[in-house]
Amino acid sequence: MDMLWSGWGDPAKAAPLPETVTGLLRDLLGVKPRTAGTIALDDISVPETRLDPAAHKALSAALGGEEHVRTDAETRLRHTRGKSTPDLLRIRDGEVDDIPAAVLLPADHEEVVAVLRVCAEHGLPVVPFGGGTSVVGGLTPARRDSFVALDLRRMDRMLALDPVSRTVTLQPGLRAPQAEALLAEQGFTLGHFPQSYEWATIGGFAATRSSGQASAGYGRFDEMVLGLTLATPEGTIDTGRAPRSAAGPDLRQLFLGSEGAFGIITSVTMRIRPVPETRVYEGWRFASFEEGTAALRRLAQDGPRPTVLRLSDETETLIGLAQPDAIGGALPQDAGCMAIAGYEGTDEDTAYRRERAAAVLRECGGTPLGEEPGQRWAHGRYSAPYLRDSLLDAGAFAETLETATFWSRVPDLYAAVHDALANTLTEAGTPPLVMCHISHVYENGASLYFTVVSAQGEDPVKHWERAKHAANEAILAAGGTISHHHGVGTDHRDWYVREAGPLGIEALRAVKERLDPDGLLNPGVLLPLD
Amino acid sequence: MDMLWSGWGDPAKAAPLPETVTGLLRDLLGVKPRTAGTIALDDISVPETRLDPAAHKALSAALGGEEHVRTDAETRLRHTRGKSTPDLLRIRDGEVDDIPAAVLLPADHEEVVAVLRVCAEHGLPVVPFGGGTSVVGGLTPARRDSFVALDLRRMDRMLALDPVSRTVTLQPGLRAPQAEALLAEQGFTLGHFPQSYEWATIGGFAATRSSGQASAGYGRFDEMVLGLTLATPEGTIDTGRAPRSAAGPDLRQLFLGSEGAFGIITSVTMRIRPVPETRVYEGWRFASFEEGTAALRRLAQDGPRPTVLRLSDETETLIGLAQPDAIGGALPQDAGCMAIAGYEGTDEDTAYRRERAAAVLRECGGTPLGEEPGQRWAHGRYSAPYLRDSLLDAGAFAETLETATFWSRVPDLYAAVHDALANTLTEAGTPPLVMCHISHVYENGASLYFTVVSAQGEDPVKHWERAKHAANEAILAAGGTISHHHGVGTDHRDWYVREAGPLGIEALRAVKERLDPDGLLNPGVLLPLD
Repeated sequence: MDMLWSGWGDPAKAAPLPETVTGLLRDLLGVKPRTAGTIALDDISVPETRLDPAAHKALSAALGGEEHVRTDAETRLRHTRGKSTPDLLRIRDGEVDDIPAAVLLPADHEEVVAVLRVCAEHGLPVVPFGGGTSVVGGLTPARRDSFVALDLRRMDRMLALDPVSRTVTLQPGLRAPQAEALLAEQGFTLGHFPQSYEWATIGGFAATRSSGQASAGYGRFDEMVLGLTLATPEGTIDTGRAPRSAAGPDLRQLFLGSEGAFGIITSVTMRIRPVPETRVYEGWRFASFEEGTAALRRLAQDGPRPTVLRLSDETETLIGLAQPDAIGGALPQDAGCMAIAGYEGTDEDTAYRRERAAAVLRECGGTPLGEEPGQRWAHGRYSAPYLRDSLLDAGAFAETLETATFWSRVPDLYAAVHDALANTLTEAGTPPLVMCHISHVYENGASLYFTVVSAQGEDPVKHWERAKHAANEAILAAGGTISHHHGVGTDHRDWYVREAGPLGIEALRAVKERLDPDGLLNPGVLLPLD
Repeated sequence: MDMLWSGWGDPAKAAPLPETVTGLLRDLLGVKPRTAGTIALDDISVPETRLDPAAHKALSAALGGEEHVRTDAETRLRHTRGKSTPDLLRIRDGEVDDIPAAVLLPADHEEVVAVLRVCAEHGLPVVPFGGGTSVVGGLTPARRDSFVALDLRRMDRMLALDPVSRTVTLQPGLRAPQAEALLAEQGFTLGHFPQSYEWATIGGFAATRSSGQASAGYGRFDEMVLGLTLATPEGTIDTGRAPRSAAGPDLRQLFLGSEGAFGIITSVTMRIRPVPETRVYEGWRFASFEEGTAALRRLAQDGPRPTVLRLSDETETLIGLAQPDAIGGALPQDAGCMAIAGYEGTDEDTAYRRERAAAVLRECGGTPLGEEPGQRWAHGRYSAPYLRDSLLDAGAFAETLETATFWSRVPDLYAAVHDALANTLTEAGTPPLVMCHISHVYENGASLYFTVVSAQGEDPVKHWERAKHAANEAILAAGGTISHHHGVGTDHRDWYVREAGPLGIEALRAVKERLDPDGLLNPGVLLPLD
């Protein structure tokens, strides 16, 4: 099944907002119904492919047949840009500037290598395409005159499973649920459940350093990776002979997060864990974001560590508690800040951690709210992007961004980003709701995940560009990283260059030039063109 | 205090072997007393420095004075090579081919940058020198006509401590005990206790991806590093704005393990933990290495994880149990394999983990031996290199090597390396004792640490070269990494090149060429010259 071309995920899951919510949007944010609806797929004027016929022929040969070089309008359209809100607004307007000339469907590592050879011969830029869920412009190369999208969906097999070492080797085009299904047959799980879970792929997780909602227990995706294979125009690199090594720099960590700019990830070897016997999620209330943050820090540093650990700020808590049916009635007063603590594992270990963590959370001022809020969170954990579709349909603007830093800088980073977003959008005439949660915790710091909802206003893409620019500046000034788990893409590139510093960027550029001397791999993504 | 120039560590700790041990060496391994003793320091013929006077003057200016450019014979001699057994045998013979032209003593980052500038102007290779404890030829550059050793001992300050985030920023020349002392004043510890603990430095740990004896609980050194500053001939790189990030490849992991070939590490920001309330170590007996390995794997994968977890094979167990006074009498029969499980942390957490882990170890066939073997291990945890000095004095040869792989490959790797060492040295006429222990565990694999003791024979350096060559080949063939925690240096370089593969090496060489265009940083260490 394909994703909704003009939005997120499964078209069957789309649902209009209840009247109560649209009322709230209207009253609180001044949201007006969209005058123009989304263009129909068939009405979009898609330019003919500019793929050179000789290249087309060579690519067909490399891929074992015409059918694996798609140049029809719909396929190309479905590979145009990613799923950021500006991406969605543009495609809903029928704007297809970033459309690929063709979509290539390789079956294995060797076909990827062959494709890269053909692309080098024809000077054809290549954009690797996994789930297509980038929210940072990762699928929008700089040279848009003619490029190909390399869709890895046919590379969806489990290549090896080692139950003794608890490792699995997966092809990059496997979507997370497929990977989990294959592993579950053998009693294992990856434990990687980001919001993009239903659609994103193993290769994409690796290329962008994804982080899942259960990262407190299972770690980030990059921490799970034990080896990977990278196909480049100059050949293949295989990494990972041991979990850890002192044999030089860690090449795995050079290619994780390389976002297709250094090569195409054609297999990933990962840590797996037994399917948990128990999964339990519960809610906790804190009087303030500060108090809740201190509680999360305490658990992250001293343990016991829950598997899921997150904390919403006051605004997000209030909105999250606002049941559609209750809206228009009273919003809960003094809701405080809601945390979710979840535990997965063996019955015994889960019970121990839950009991001990509960004692710590109480000591830190937390009030237990029981399993109901946890179940509600678990039920809705992948639903926010669907909600965004409905908000966009209703004339609202909704977008997210995220960052991370060390614990001592969290309060300043929170305030700086919050204010940057609120001020910029208010100045633009579309005062927003700015919500935030701590989405991932570490011993030494945490990530902050912001959600913004406002009216669309005159030119929502332009308004957001300004707000996002201000937020990015605030992040760098407050000592945060420009992305904790979304990646760099093209949207964060200018700030990433500042974060890594000129010589850090030069070191990475040297790697790119050696592996991709013609600069054909995702040009302009991660690293600037020149 | 300086290390013993001709051996390990504190000269005051050297002690001759008891007669019972020399008897065992003689009877079991045919060890004959050395006919030639160690040359006296003053009798070594040290060539005059070849440091160009103009360079000398410029370096003195960069370092704020003559006294920070040392060219006297003793200082240079004390910076000649590292502490592998071949290194010691060579220096004991008065062989000083690898002597630096000068020893430089910078005070801070800016002086390191200034030194690199002068070295670039004068085409002078630079070898960074921390504790001088390399056992892989990490201090032996390829261009030996004239190079300088950059000794970081003056850079021994704590630059920042953040108790909220639990991070510390340290200068690279701090020795581990000094670092621990500074942190202990604030109630913290790094928890990094490798065998080289007494002498090695923070910068050296980072540059070589060191791993300590408590890695099961505290992690490897590279896992503790949250940021580092690198001075290169082309400028400075600062890394680490958050514990984890999705902003591109992890530059920290590109410079960790770079062994001075990419730049000089001038500060390291690290995770710290509270000083543990409790430390307890205990012994366990397993019938076989296979049974013990399965038990360690179970704890590493399912927990609870001890802080220290190691397992000796039958031979190492037997030798370890052989008390000097008992030798010549009966060696223990059927000693099996000894494991050490240690727990550090709060009283409550330690008690819980210890009790649960004990249940797991029993289930896996283990017999508890109580705290006595654990205390003995803890007492002697840094003593093996001193013992080596005494063995060398007594005419024996003693050396170690280590590797790591995934759990399923551990048995084959163990057998292959064991046999390669035993066969090669037996063929050379010096049949060895080959001992091994699992020194570090991960969810997905473990490291194997081998110790070899034999007679020195005619030419021990040459014999060992052959044995080490055979072991390295066995490691690669069995799927292991060429080093789990000693590093690459010059000794492992040829095998490292095969492990990383030609294109992986090209990627790293591209980084080196960008940061060190004249190839002056530790030339021939980590990467081959051309």
